[in-house]
Amino acid sequence: MRELGQRAREAGRSMARATTSARNEALLATARALDASRDNLRERNELDLEAGRERGLDAAMLDRLELTPGRIDAMIEGLRQVATLADPVGVISDMQYRPSGIQVGRMRVPLGVIGIIYESRPNVTVDAASLCIKSGNAAVLRGGSEAIHSNQAIADCVRQGLKEAGLSESAVQVVETTDREAVGNLIRMPEYVDVIVPRGGKGLIERISREAEVPVIKHLDGICHSFLDRDADPEKALAVTVNAKTQRYGTCNTLETLLVDRAVAEEILPPVARKLGEIGVELRGCPETLALIENAIPATDEDWETEYLAPVLSIRVVDGLDEAIAHINRYSSQHTDSIITENYTRARRFLTEVDSSSVMVNASTRFADGFEYGLGAEIGISTDKLHARGPVGLEGLTSEKYIVFGDGHIRT
Amino acid sequence: MRELGQRAREAGRSMARATTSARNEALLATARALDASRDNLRERNELDLEAGRERGLDAAMLDRLELTPGRIDAMIEGLRQVATLADPVGVISDMQYRPSGIQVGRMRVPLGVIGIIYESRPNVTVDAASLCIKSGNAAVLRGGSEAIHSNQAIADCVRQGLKEAGLSESAVQVVETTDREAVGNLIRMPEYVDVIVPRGGKGLIERISREAEVPVIKHLDGICHSFLDRDADPEKALAVTVNAKTQRYGTCNTLETLLVDRAVAEEILPPVARKLGEIGVELRGCPETLALIENAIPATDEDWETEYLAPVLSIRVVDGLDEAIAHINRYSSQHTDSIITENYTRARRFLTEVDSSSVMVNASTRFADGFEYGLGAEIGISTDKLHARGPVGLEGLTSEKYIVFGDGHIRT
Repeated sequence: MRELGQRAREAGRSMARATTSARNEALLATARALDASRDNLRERNELDLEAGRERGLDAAMLDRLELTPGRIDAMIEGLRQVATLADPVGVISDMQYRPSGIQVGRMRVPLGVIGIIYESRPNVTVDAASLCIKSGNAAVLRGGSEAIHSNQAIADCVRQGLKEAGLSESAVQVVETTDREAVGNLIRMPEYVDVIVPRGGKGLIERISREAEVPVIKHLDGICHSFLDRDADPEKALAVTVNAKTQRYGTCNTLETLLVDRAVAEEILPPVARKLGEIGVELRGCPETLALIENAIPATDEDWETEYLAPVLSIRVVDGLDEAIAHINRYSSQHTDSIITENYTRARRFLTEVDSSSVMVNASTRFADGFEYGLGAEIGISTDKLHARGPVGLEGLTSEKYIVFGDGHIRT
Repeated sequence: MRELGQRAREAGRSMARATTSARNEALLATARALDASRDNLRERNELDLEAGRERGLDAAMLDRLELTPGRIDAMIEGLRQVATLADPVGVISDMQYRPSGIQVGRMRVPLGVIGIIYESRPNVTVDAASLCIKSGNAAVLRGGSEAIHSNQAIADCVRQGLKEAGLSESAVQVVETTDREAVGNLIRMPEYVDVIVPRGGKGLIERISREAEVPVIKHLDGICHSFLDRDADPEKALAVTVNAKTQRYGTCNTLETLLVDRAVAEEILPPVARKLGEIGVELRGCPETLALIENAIPATDEDWETEYLAPVLSIRVVDGLDEAIAHINRYSSQHTDSIITENYTRARRFLTEVDSSSVMVNASTRFADGFEYGLGAEIGISTDKLHARGPVGLEGLTSEKYIVFGDGHIRT
């Protein structure tokens, strides 16, 4: 691992110097290589699928693992899209003269070497590699052991792309061993790795955060709330709540708890509950909720702190905005929270006082996503406050250094 | 400590909601309180000075500890200046419509609770408190045991200022015990503390970074370089080198290693060495340096990685820009490095390829400072790459969250 780290560090230095067009060419050449390697990708993916079937992986896991022709198309399209994004590297901002006569500004620069630890889906290999190449970083990728052959097949294409563009083939390295030790080493090499991005279950991320000696961009759970204010438009409340809960169940920006202002609960809650019930969502309510709707079972304290990732919604009637904000700031995972209201002042207070990475007015929490926000791509959604908060795109993989221009200026 | 943490967390929430004018008023009222408490400050400072003399602190330490009338003036002036700075909290940027119809932007928000651990100088208590108040954070301050009475006297004034402005008096808390345990607890309460800023010697910072379970904004050593390029203007080279080395010896942005292009070493180095020798700077050179100047002793490998903080300078003749950049990227602490040149292309390459928090052209490394850069004030100089890099001002004590405005928008 140390040799791999050393190669990554050197490759990172050369990537930081690489031109915009060389980095873009590497992405496009990787796309061409993937397109030309479809048969090989499918064959090596089949090795993983066979091994997975033997190990008794369930159907959902096997589905995530499979590289269908459509998924290969999507990887190729993703690379082409990242190539079209603006280059974040070298952007100079806030350049200004100071009273001393020096000019001071900031220049955006790559972080260096980014370690990415992820599970099952092999397309993450391409996503992560493309964002790191675009942002002038080197990447060390450690995918799940169940996808090792697929990941290596994809890595071969990335290496070919880097080579065709005249860049270091070590700019993207896939850890070849499936040994657990490898992760332990990767997260303890601050001399070679600048930041770790874990993508996977909460257990993986918590373990890595605890053990890492390298900064970690964390993506913990998403316990997202919508608050239906007393001035909510009932139609918007219905549409947004149903979308936020049911558009996809397994994503971190899915709604998990609905808060309703007592003043309108009797009017606004029953149609929402009816619609969710029709779709098959299990409702767990506070006592007041149970009195207003029929298709709910009692919620326990545990419900308020649970990310269901399933067709389950907890519902609580609150005494207005203050109680809603208090509930959210206590139970939310500070991922994404939304208010539905036509009231200007309460919308403004919610935006200011809810301390989450995304705070929304009259919009579905499902919008919390790098593509929807216009970042072009994302490497994860940070629940940290420092460095990157919310969807992490190319900017999150870079940093800014100060640059100073003088003409022989000295400090007096 | 946990109770103190809990109070800080609550105070942090209320500070995040406090108006710009209330936070500014707290700063101005603190300034008035300090002005009215001069006798008390001097008396309680005298307790620390007496204890210090008894414990045998040296003259430099005692000097740093003393609250002279001039230093009290400077603290008062500092508070007034911070009050005049623009409020970073609530600034909304990059607001734009997305194809889905939602509007997405970013809002700058306080980090929450900031723990600051520092040594001796009591004026840090006011500096740190004022930046935290201005940026809408709560602060937990842990100063050195040798300044405990002075720090508490200052903290009394801050509390009075917060009270007069109608803000929580727990927004700035000074840890009352000088017990070492207290630091250990402070850096292990991620539920109450969002970031730790250690200010002090390298040993303190390394220990805290290693043991903290809370993110740390680190300020490690400053091994700063100047490279005199073959196209350096000899007068600028002389002025900048002498200023960078001798304007102050003990600061992190002081020059520690001078690199000189072989092509001009014979011309440019002797006058620089002569001037530094006159001022009393000890020179330690590579063999080529020793052949060119008389007043130098041989440098060892250790010299290239030493932050002298003293009238000592190491000098190395290099084979041009590439070797200079290689030396810097190997030995620099990535704090501040400068090139002296009239050559456009080499200036541009130096700016791009040197991976330090401040990179300069034709300017003294001594300019790497929050005040000189226009941040208004600084809480330290970060040698980290993530979050804040270089001088850390109000922006470094805040973060950005995404805000989304919709009109019942759902994701499809």
